[in-house]
Amino acid sequence: MVIKIKELDGGLTEVQGVKASGITKKGKGLAFIEGKGKITGVFTKNKVKAAPVRFTSSLLKNVDEIDNIILNSGCANAFTGEKGEKDVEWMSSLANGNTAICSTGAIGTYIDREWIQEGFKETKSSLTTDRKGSKKAAEAIKTTDTFCKEIAVEGSGYRIGAIAKGSGMIEPNMGTMLALIYTDLELGGQELDEFLKKSVRETFNLVVVDGETSTNDSALLVSTGKSNKTHEGLEDEFQENLTYVCRELAKMIAEDGEGSSKSITLKITKSKNREEARDAIKKILSSPLVKSAIYGSSPNLGRIIAALGRSKATFKEDEIEMYLDELKVIENGNIIADQEDIKEKFDKEDIKAKINLKAGNHSLEGWGCDLTPKYVEMNAGYI
Amino acid sequence: MVIKIKELDGGLTEVQGVKASGITKKGKGLAFIEGKGKITGVFTKNKVKAAPVRFTSSLLKNVDEIDNIILNSGCANAFTGEKGEKDVEWMSSLANGNTAICSTGAIGTYIDREWIQEGFKETKSSLTTDRKGSKKAAEAIKTTDTFCKEIAVEGSGYRIGAIAKGSGMIEPNMGTMLALIYTDLELGGQELDEFLKKSVRETFNLVVVDGETSTNDSALLVSTGKSNKTHEGLEDEFQENLTYVCRELAKMIAEDGEGSSKSITLKITKSKNREEARDAIKKILSSPLVKSAIYGSSPNLGRIIAALGRSKATFKEDEIEMYLDELKVIENGNIIADQEDIKEKFDKEDIKAKINLKAGNHSLEGWGCDLTPKYVEMNAGYI
Repeated sequence: MVIKIKELDGGLTEVQGVKASGITKKGKGLAFIEGKGKITGVFTKNKVKAAPVRFTSSLLKNVDEIDNIILNSGCANAFTGEKGEKDVEWMSSLANGNTAICSTGAIGTYIDREWIQEGFKETKSSLTTDRKGSKKAAEAIKTTDTFCKEIAVEGSGYRIGAIAKGSGMIEPNMGTMLALIYTDLELGGQELDEFLKKSVRETFNLVVVDGETSTNDSALLVSTGKSNKTHEGLEDEFQENLTYVCRELAKMIAEDGEGSSKSITLKITKSKNREEARDAIKKILSSPLVKSAIYGSSPNLGRIIAALGRSKATFKEDEIEMYLDELKVIENGNIIADQEDIKEKFDKEDIKAKINLKAGNHSLEGWGCDLTPKYVEMNAGYI
Repeated sequence: MVIKIKELDGGLTEVQGVKASGITKKGKGLAFIEGKGKITGVFTKNKVKAAPVRFTSSLLKNVDEIDNIILNSGCANAFTGEKGEKDVEWMSSLANGNTAICSTGAIGTYIDREWIQEGFKETKSSLTTDRKGSKKAAEAIKTTDTFCKEIAVEGSGYRIGAIAKGSGMIEPNMGTMLALIYTDLELGGQELDEFLKKSVRETFNLVVVDGETSTNDSALLVSTGKSNKTHEGLEDEFQENLTYVCRELAKMIAEDGEGSSKSITLKITKSKNREEARDAIKKILSSPLVKSAIYGSSPNLGRIIAALGRSKATFKEDEIEMYLDELKVIENGNIIADQEDIKEKFDKEDIKAKINLKAGNHSLEGWGCDLTPKYVEMNAGYI
């Protein structure tokens, strides 16, 4: 099924039953989302899970519905032991009802309770169903992000709205970033879960910025049910709309990769299976040599092939084909394009590559970015 | 068994029965080693194996002894199809007898036969058992290497001598670089093989520069037997000497990581098993965030813990301990050292870190380097 996507301006607050706000002060941010609804979530697979990840995933096991989400940026509250646990419980108690918590920022530092308390009061008093509310929340959860990430779509009588953050420590092992998605379609817990997992698998799980998997990654999907529309007969449409929302956020995250100057869309076709295609995408898009070459528009296809060779993908060296846009650059394992033509394709800000493995019938697309001296300087603390 | 290592000046030509020479011209290099002997080798596990890797590994299956090794730098002869195969056969036919071939350089380019032929003539006429011969060969196989890598040790009546190259595309999956090791101890094919595999596992396999695995990695061990000394009773000593030689070369490769400004020695102690320790070392030493932080002496231990959390290592977050030199920086999962003290340790050119996982009894050491803007610039083609 291919549906026509109807994108709206705005984000979270396009959805009925959702209020949002956020503030940023002294390099820290806090966002508050109010909106009772059924909830599901996917969380980082890193063994070191931040206190808010442990808290929220445990909350979701015990309750079907939540009332609010509080997010803070500037402190990840990860690797913070018992004090971190107490801090997140305390944060959750600031709001009435069941409150999920997401945090992002430096690992191994404690939250500043005084700052959080004041920030919470301020956001609570400014909660709004207005478009600005979502924008403020998206703004508040930025860390090294250079732009706000929000999106909303309109389905048949319901809406989906979302915000996300992410630009460094990105290689979602199921959502390496924060993403909050609300919908007003009526959905039960089990259905919600299946919809989210399926969309995440095709989107956030295929973004690579730097091959890292953070301690704090969380993607939450909440259904307020306020559209009074049930999902009966709308399953396929809702799934497509949700996947669209997640994919657009995933692309924004790739595009906003720390220090990046170019984004890369890589499609693997005719792979033996999905897992091999995914591994090929990840190995290529996380290769420092490939990413450096693309930064410099160095027409070094050999590095892409070497990265492919390190992956689990099945292929015969003398059969593979590769395209940059519509230009065939590799045919039957031979580089057939001119260096100058390859360089011209790599010079673009939005590079589209396709590799045909001729080993099966699976296709998969993933998103990444180049590696720049700025990435290193930012993470060295020099910027 | 712990033996006293007796290191000699020089490299390959310290070994009886070995002549060497090399030349470098117009950004390309060629080395020629003459020395009849039993041979074994380990090769890249990348699915895209360079023509010389396929040729030499196939040669080693068919013969027990070789007469020579020719190495060239500047062209990897990888991803070069049938032409590449013919080129390597032709290269091998330049010398008399059985000749192994190793290549390093750009992938997807063909060798320049004219250049190779002239280079070969010149090196052949200048072959020598003198120390300078080994030095010239080590010099000729450099690509982005900033210094020559050679070493020799003296055992009980025999010697081991070696040269290596490697600084980028380094994450040996069993020898991601070129290493040639000769000994004059009398050893049969089977023994040779076991000695080499064991030493490689503890040394080259634990170096990470950029997490890449090249198409050309090869480590060859040749026994000329010219010392007229058999290995009986010397097994342990020989193994230790060989491991020492490989470890020193591995450390040189890490120290010479492309664009790097610091080297890192990471020891994992009390790991559940060897494989988990190895994975922890690899995940930490290949993390762009950890490597960028170390470049900038940013005291961000959280990134090291997040990388550890992505590894297969078993540990409890609230039990781990970490040291920088003798300074305990993490105790029972809490960061206990001052930021300034951590920064001071990261400011050193040779950083020594130790993480105690308290999960078993295995210890393992690995070597890496920082990630710098220069690495990116070099691989972008801007330097």
